[in-house]
Amino acid sequence: MQIAFTKMQGLGNDFIIFDNTSNSISLTTEQIRFIARRRFGVGCDQLLFVEASNKPNVDFRYRIFNADGEEVQQCGNGARCFARFVVDKGLTDKKNLVIETHSGLICPQIEENGDITVNMGVPRLNPVDIPFNADKVELQYPIMVGTDLYKIGAISIGNPHAVLLVDSIETAPVETVGAKLSLHHRFPQRANVSFMQIIDNSNIKLRVYERGVGETLACGTGACAAVVVGQRLKRLDSIVTVNLPGGQLQIQWAGPDAAVLMTGPAVHVFEGTIEL
Amino acid sequence: MQIAFTKMQGLGNDFIIFDNTSNSISLTTEQIRFIARRRFGVGCDQLLFVEASNKPNVDFRYRIFNADGEEVQQCGNGARCFARFVVDKGLTDKKNLVIETHSGLICPQIEENGDITVNMGVPRLNPVDIPFNADKVELQYPIMVGTDLYKIGAISIGNPHAVLLVDSIETAPVETVGAKLSLHHRFPQRANVSFMQIIDNSNIKLRVYERGVGETLACGTGACAAVVVGQRLKRLDSIVTVNLPGGQLQIQWAGPDAAVLMTGPAVHVFEGTIEL
Repeated sequence: MQIAFTKMQGLGNDFIIFDNTSNSISLTTEQIRFIARRRFGVGCDQLLFVEASNKPNVDFRYRIFNADGEEVQQCGNGARCFARFVVDKGLTDKKNLVIETHSGLICPQIEENGDITVNMGVPRLNPVDIPFNADKVELQYPIMVGTDLYKIGAISIGNPHAVLLVDSIETAPVETVGAKLSLHHRFPQRANVSFMQIIDNSNIKLRVYERGVGETLACGTGACAAVVVGQRLKRLDSIVTVNLPGGQLQIQWAGPDAAVLMTGPAVHVFEGTIEL
Repeated sequence: MQIAFTKMQGLGNDFIIFDNTSNSISLTTEQIRFIARRRFGVGCDQLLFVEASNKPNVDFRYRIFNADGEEVQQCGNGARCFARFVVDKGLTDKKNLVIETHSGLICPQIEENGDITVNMGVPRLNPVDIPFNADKVELQYPIMVGTDLYKIGAISIGNPHAVLLVDSIETAPVETVGAKLSLHHRFPQRANVSFMQIIDNSNIKLRVYERGVGETLACGTGACAAVVVGQRLKRLDSIVTVNLPGGQLQIQWAGPDAAVLMTGPAVHVFEGTIEL
C-alpha cells in the first residue's frame, strides 16, 4: 500500500498529515509507531488525519494519534497545521473553518500574515470535566508527588492539563515531576504538565511534558492552559506572549466563559510517499 | 526550487539521498542544515549525493555531508544505502559496483538476501595517513584526556578513528571522553571514537561517538575500525559480529594489506519532495 503524506510543523512540533477526504487510509498501531519513529521511519510527534465531516456546517473532521499509536483528543499546534493543510491543498477556500474533533468543534482562522488563530474553546475548570479528582473548583490544588507537595492549576483545553508556577524555566523538573504528574492517579486520563515562569503580566516562558510523549518543543494546549491559570491567579493580562523552546505563541483569553484564542505559525515542510 | 529525495536508513543511521546523475542539485550549508534538522526539516544524520563519475571503470561518485553541513569522506552505512539506492532506482543493473568517494574507491556488492557488502578498503595504520600525531605505528597509543590516561587504537577507514576497549558498553563514557577524544589535538582532522566491549572472539558490542555528530546508533566505519584494532590485539577472529545500538553488522578482515568487508542491511523508508 503506497500512501501519500505531508509533513508540517508548528514551533518544531511536527506532524505527518494524511488526506482522508478522498482516501480511506487506516493504519494499525504498529504502522503509526513505525511512521512516527525518527531515524527508522518518517519521524514525527503526531499523525493527523483530515476527514470529511457528516455534521451540518462543519467543514472537516480531524483525528490525531500520538507517536505511541494512541488516539488523542486534540493538539493546538496540530490544529494550526491542519488548517494550513486544508487551505494549501485547496480542500477549502474558506478563511474561517469549523472542524470537528474528538473533544468538540474548533474554529481556525487564517490570518493575513499566514499565521493561524485557533479558537481552542472555553476552558473547562470543573474537575469532573478535566477529568481531575477534586471536590470543587480551586485556583490551585495541593497535590502529592511522591513525598513532595506541589500546587497545580488543573484545567481542560480539550485535554487535561496541570500547570505549575516555577521561578526558573531552566531548572524546572520537567522530566521528573512532569512525568510523575502526567501519570498521577488524580488524573484518570493522565495529564499534560506545564511549567510556567512568569516574566511580566504579558510574557511567560513555558516548558511542557506531554502525556505519552515526554517534553516537547511547544505544546499549544499547554500554552492556553498556562495563560488561563495565570490569569485566574491575577498574574497575567488578557493577551500573553508564550515563549516555548520551539518559538512563540500569542494566547488571548477574555476571562470566564470566553474561548481561548491561540495564534501562531504552521509551516509546510515536505511531501512524501511511503510503502506500508 | 522543488527537489526530490529518498530517505533510507542502515541500522537507524539515516540518510537523505539526492540523485545528481540526472540533476545538478547544489545545496548551501544552510539548506543542508535545514534538511537535516529533525522536527523543523526532513531530519537525517547525513545527506548523500549520487553523481556520475568521470573516471574509467567507475560507476558512480558519492558525496556525503554531515548534519552540520560539513562535507565528509565516507560512511559505511551510507555506502550500503548508496548501493541499494542506485540498484532500486534502476541507475545500474550491476551487483558489484565501483564508487568513487573523497577517500578513494569503494566496491559495494548486493547479496542474495538484500544485505550489502561493502569493501571498505585497506585500513591505514600509519599515523600520518590517519592523520594522528605519533612517531610510529603501535597497537595502542597512550593518550591524555584532561588529566586521565587512556590507551587507544588509532586507524583510518577512510576517516580517522580512535578505538578504546571497555569492560562494559553500558557504562562507557561515550559522551564525555568520546567528545574530548574526537576533538583531541593529536587528531588534526578530529576523530570518530569507538568504545568496544569484547564478548568473545567473534562478537563485540560497540558504541561510537562520531565527529561533528555525537553518539550514533551505528557507525559502519567505527565497526570496521574496532574489529581491526581487536584483531591486531589478537582478541578477535577474522569474521566478527558487531552489535551496535541500531542493529548488527558482520565485519570481515583477513589481516594486514587486506581490505575490510562490511555486510549489513540498507532499508528504503520513503520518497519525498521539498521546496527550497
